This record gives sequence, structure tokens and C-alpha cells, in this order.
Amino acid sequence: MKIGILGYGNLGKGVELAAEQNPDVELAAIFTRRNPDDLSVRSKTANVVSINDIADWQDKIDVLIICGGSATDLPEQTPKYAKMFNVIDSFDTHAKIPEHYEKVNKSALENKHTAIISVGWDPGLFSLNRMYANAILPNGKDYTFWGKGVSQGHSDAIRRIEGVKNAKQYTIPVDKALKSVKNCENPELTTREKHTRECFVVAYDWADKAKIENEIKTMPNYFADYDTTVHFITEEELEKEHSGIPHGGFVIRTGKTSENTNHVIEYSLKLDSNPEFTSSVLIAYARAAFKLCGEKQFGCKTVFDIAPAYLSAKSPEELRKTML
Amino acid sequence: MKIGILGYGNLGKGVELAAEQNPDVELAAIFTRRNPDDLSVRSKTANVVSINDIADWQDKIDVLIICGGSATDLPEQTPKYAKMFNVIDSFDTHAKIPEHYEKVNKSALENKHTAIISVGWDPGLFSLNRMYANAILPNGKDYTFWGKGVSQGHSDAIRRIEGVKNAKQYTIPVDKALKSVKNCENPELTTREKHTRECFVVAYDWADKAKIENEIKTMPNYFADYDTTVHFITEEELEKEHSGIPHGGFVIRTGKTSENTNHVIEYSLKLDSNPEFTSSVLIAYARAAFKLCGEKQFGCKTVFDIAPAYLSAKSPEELRKTML
Repeated sequence: MKIGILGYGNLGKGVELAAEQNPDVELAAIFTRRNPDDLSVRSKTANVVSINDIADWQDKIDVLIICGGSATDLPEQTPKYAKMFNVIDSFDTHAKIPEHYEKVNKSALENKHTAIISVGWDPGLFSLNRMYANAILPNGKDYTFWGKGVSQGHSDAIRRIEGVKNAKQYTIPVDKALKSVKNCENPELTTREKHTRECFVVAYDWADKAKIENEIKTMPNYFADYDTTVHFITEEELEKEHSGIPHGGFVIRTGKTSENTNHVIEYSLKLDSNPEFTSSVLIAYARAAFKLCGEKQFGCKTVFDIAPAYLSAKSPEELRKTML
Repeated sequence: MKIGILGYGNLGKGVELAAEQNPDVELAAIFTRRNPDDLSVRSKTANVVSINDIADWQDKIDVLIICGGSATDLPEQTPKYAKMFNVIDSFDTHAKIPEHYEKVNKSALENKHTAIISVGWDPGLFSLNRMYANAILPNGKDYTFWGKGVSQGHSDAIRRIEGVKNAKQYTIPVDKALKSVKNCENPELTTREKHTRECFVVAYDWADKAKIENEIKTMPNYFADYDTTVHFITEEELEKEHSGIPHGGFVIRTGKTSENTNHVIEYSLKLDSNPEFTSSVLIAYARAAFKLCGEKQFGCKTVFDIAPAYLSAKSPEELRKTML
């Protein structure tokens, strides 16, 4: 399977790494909005191509993995490139998924391509586990906890405050809440009870730290509803201790099958690198898109529509023999 | 969807309970090898029917859930009844799955039915999670731990010892091993290092307890390779403290996406009742079999072949909107 990467940021670089781990995957091209000559990539064999020339590659790659952002890139790119290629994206604006789906589906169907949207771990693997658990325990309650991990959006929000040079924000599940859920106590949890937020901030010398701390803690939507801790550190400390992009979380469903019979289904991820893991999920679903297209199953799909075996490089016989 | 249950043991009773929780499911009939008049069932509406009359029900039920044992019942029943019905079973003799698959597939294909075999949690949900995790992290290591839970086979083995009146055996994962796995230490674990076995035994008055304990602890295959604890208790204590059939376990895959980047994917179940939970999985896959048959997707399937959305009573639109 020959893949192309569109966009060479953290996610694109992750896909490049993940491709190396899958012998059936060949990274044919990296498409960029930048000048290809200015882009230094890890792969020794992939072509680096201007996005302006992408149409020339329609017969040369099997699946295009679109590694743009959900805010502005993907709503435009995925429907557009589904005209030329089988595509995968990691669109993660949950509320806009139905709208995105419709656009991508139309474009993919009209051009006989297979598209898979909202692939990654949330949406993605977490969604799958929510869905399986709901189908199995209809009488129950869902909980999702995120972290410990870096929230890019929250880190960015801190960086926009006057006097802040750099910042990193961690979302942390509250241990007490997690334990209560796992004990089938079915708690009703407020935002504050579920997660805390920890911020590591590099301030300019001239900045008013008390003011920064107050601005963070009272920021609506981002921090006001949480117990937030702010640590001021040096640029060197930030670089040394907080340069990673770890993440993860828990999807838990608790439910009953009879009056006193409780069950807990738990799925959790602990990831050293959010983008590298997301990319690994993208590659597995790229394999599915390639197989589905081969079966003429065109149009837009999500993780819910794809039988697990499509993700694997192993044959159905091998899977039954070794994994069931 | 109208379902039938074949066999009214723990599993069949669990399916009966699970059917009550799913408004789209109607339990039409319970088929039994016993005299139907002697069978007292929970359901007020289901017909209790002799297995000899099962052929009369071919147009009256959509899916037959076969609740027999894997040792002798299912290898014979599932291929046989796949001629008459769409069928689901929980065949769990891992080594014989390929052979069972072939027989059921032939029978289902010839008679235009959909069959799903080896449904439950292991095989079943655990298999799914092993497979997804392997597809996503090709460079990694798998671990499965079972328990804490009752092993029926091991309890039976103890009951066969001279002087034993009754017994219950729990399989317990070793906490140290579990922690090492979750910490990405990639341990190589022996049988003894992964699980311990705890036995609660009711002995006859005349029995030699020291001899029983020794026989248990040295029993090949069942106990000899484990650290085993034996407690002698009264029949009343056994009834009061150990009458449940809890189980569960952990499927963990740890893997790398680059040199120092580790990830942990963990799936765990904590079940108050093994048969009630297994039955809930069977009902969800019965729904899938019914939908697949409607699409003329005949033949034998496993959990690997079935897109998650088929398990749900919700529409694809609803799933995308609420669960993705």
C-alpha cells in the first residue's frame, strides 16, 4: 500500500514514523504547502512534493493521510482531496462531525473513493469503546477521563496572555472520581470533580506573575471551571521537563445486568506521544480504506463502520487462528 | 428482532435477562432437551419448547442463541442449527476455532444463514482488543491476565478429588506482574509469575485434608505450575461467600512508535457475573447477525468480521452524532 502524507507537522511526522513500522506500507510522497526544497524530512525515499502538484499523484498513491488541523484545514481539505484519493483524517471537532461527514461522503461517493474521518483515539478508539460498551450494557453509565496529558489548546490559551513567553498545560483526571466510577458508585461528576489543570509557565522578566496566574485561573471555558495550579518555571526547565506531548485517558462504562449484578468495562491509554500514537491509528485505518476501496465500498466511513479485521495486515484465517 | 435460546443453563438464563434490557429484542422461545413442562423459566411470554420441535420455529425466530458447552455441545449444535437459523455461539476452545469455523461456515453458506461464533469476552471482546492493539502498535508485546474470577474448570477438578464435597477456585492476577507490564518493562513472565490460584474447599468429615491440599497443589496442568492457596471452609461459608460467578481480566499491549516513545493500551473487565455479561455480548452480536442476514451477508463470522455499528440499536447517524 502506497500512502501520501498531506502536511508535515507533528501528526505528519508521526505518520512517517508509523509507516516505517508497517512492512506493507510504503510512504510515497509528502505533500506540503511550503517550498518542498525547504522541507527536511526523515524519510530517505519519500518524494517531497508541493501541494500544487498533488493532482499528478492520483494514480501513484493508494491512500492520502490528511494531517491538517480540525479548525480550518480539514473541513476544506478532506472533501477536496476525497475527489482525487482515498483519504483518512483525524477531524476532532465532535459537534461538527455530522456536517463534515456529509460533505466528505458526497465527494467520495461521486468520485468512487473511500474516506474515513475522525480517526485517532478521541474521536477514534475511545468512540469505539464507548459504542461497544453501550451496545453490550444498555443499562449503564458512561465516563470519559482525559490525561494525564498535554492539552495543546489550553497551552495556546496561556501563551496568548500578556507577559507569557511559553507555557504547557496538563489535564489530569481526579483520582477520587476515577476510583468512585470504577467502584460502580455511579457518581454525578461536575467538571471540577473530574479533572484538574496544571500549568507550567515561562514569564518574561517584566511580567506581573500574580496577574498572569489570576488571568489563567479565571479564564472562562478554559480554566474557570477547574481547580488549576500554576507553576512559574524557566525556559530551560520547560524544555528539559515538559518538551514531550504525552496524553491518554480512560473510557469507562459501568452497568447492570440484573438488580445486584454490576459490571465495569474499562479502556485506557497511556501515551508518551499523542501525535505518534494518533498516527499509528491513522495508518491502521489507511489499510482499511485501501481494502474497502478494493471491494468498491466507496463513500465516507467512521470507525463504527469498519470491521476490525480490515485494520490488520494479517489474513482472516491467521487472525482467527492467532488472535481469537 | 425475535430470538430463541437453546439450552437453559447459566448462559441461557443470562440471555433471558439480557433480552429484557434491550427493547428491540423479543425472546420468542427457549428450546430445551428436558421435558418443557418441567422447566420453570423467568420469562412470562417466551414459549418453552422441546428441542425435538425446533424445526417448526424456522420462520418464527430471527436468531438462535446457542448456549451449550464448548466441549461437546457446540461442535455438534452450531453447524446443525446453522442449517435452520441464523446462529450465535460462545465457542471458547481456542485451538479448535478454525475447525469449528469451517464447519459452521459451510452449513450457514449452504442454507443462506448468518452465523457468528466465539462470541463473549474471551474469546470475544478480549480478542477484539488484542487485534485492534496489534494493528495499531505492530512493534509491541501482548499480555492477558484473567481474574479475579471463578474458573469453572478448576473448581470441577477439585471436586473430583476424593473427600471433597464442594469447591470454588479463583484465578487471581499477580499485582507485581501487572504493574511491571503497565510500566512498559516488557517482562517475560512465567505461568507462576502471572496468576495465583485460591481454592475454597468443603471437605467431608472423614476426609484427610492434608492429602486433599497436596493433591490440589500438585495437580498437573491445573495447579502444579501455580502458587496455590487452599482454604477449608464449611458448606454454609461456601454458599454465603462464594456463590457468585465473578470474573474479568486485562488485555494489555505495550509498544513503541520510536526509540523512547512507549504506549500502553489497556482493556479490562470487572464482572459480577461471568454468564450474565457473556450473555449481554451474545445479544449485541445477535443484533449484528440479524442485520447482516438482512444484507445477505451469509456464512460464518467472528467478532473480527463485524463492524461495530452492527451491534448497536442506534442508527449510523445517531452513532456519529452521539458517540463519536
